Amino acid sequence: MRKIYSVLVENRSGVLSKVAGLFARRSFNIDSLVVGETDDRTVSCMTIVSNGDERTLQQIEKQLNKKIDVIKVKTFDEPDAISRELMLIKLRYNKTNRRDIMENCDIMGAQIVNIAKSTMLVQICDEPENIETFIGMMRSISIVEIARTGTVALPKCTE
Amino acid sequence: MRKIYSVLVENRSGVLSKVAGLFARRSFNIDSLVVGETDDRTVSCMTIVSNGDERTLQQIEKQLNKKIDVIKVKTFDEPDAISRELMLIKLRYNKTNRRDIMENCDIMGAQIVNIAKSTMLVQICDEPENIETFIGMMRSISIVEIARTGTVALPKCTE
Repeated sequence: MRKIYSVLVENRSGVLSKVAGLFARRSFNIDSLVVGETDDRTVSCMTIVSNGDERTLQQIEKQLNKKIDVIKVKTFDEPDAISRELMLIKLRYNKTNRRDIMENCDIMGAQIVNIAKSTMLVQICDEPENIETFIGMMRSISIVEIARTGTVALPKCTE
Repeated sequence: MRKIYSVLVENRSGVLSKVAGLFARRSFNIDSLVVGETDDRTVSCMTIVSNGDERTLQQIEKQLNKKIDVIKVKTFDEPDAISRELMLIKLRYNKTNRRDIMENCDIMGAQIVNIAKSTMLVQICDEPENIETFIGMMRSISIVEIARTGTVALPKCTE
């Protein structure tokens, strides 16, 4: 079972370390973690995706709520949320595979954001499984390097 | 001075905690941190943006290189990199401000990805300063909540 934690924390040095430490000490598995600012500069929002049995997941939530720097913890299941991920991927290209790369980018809604004689940088922002699909498509071409965020998610609109 | 660290690490539980701890113990400031998988499942890529004087920044790099779970550290300055950030933002809308929101989304290349009677979820993926601009535009409307990744970056194509 996968659970998404949206955790509002004080934007202070050391908070990330404390939260990551909480997971590590209990060997709770973090599938992905992102930290970003909110519209209030003193508050950061962490999105953590974790998996485990119901008991473990409840325990994580309880432990998070106990931390002094944690303002609010919200959890939601994957189907109730809009999840997105961002990836930058550098590819080696040539005249033979250039058309193929461009068509794959078109299909997946990816954009070429930087290019030189034999390498290009492509940006894609989509649901996490589509990011995987795109990597699969590019694997047969030539991947130089990848930088990828974890999942960022918000509950779907209900009102 | 802002520096971007692209750190390849073993994809093991506890690695994030160790790296975050390294920064926290030395009171090095983390502006943003993202962790994501690479095309190799046993390896994760962390993108860390930090600022400080030249000496501090070199020290961070040295300390990172000493960690056993760290495979490779690359650093680059902001102008040499393509930086992107992803944000999901939930807005409260009505008939009066709907057109305004849509025009702002069009201008900034943001997409409405989920909608209900009075709230909508917008996705934007752009350079970090443009994300700030978009938040500024929406502040006068009505922000319900924000989830934002930190900066993800790769060096520009040179070959």
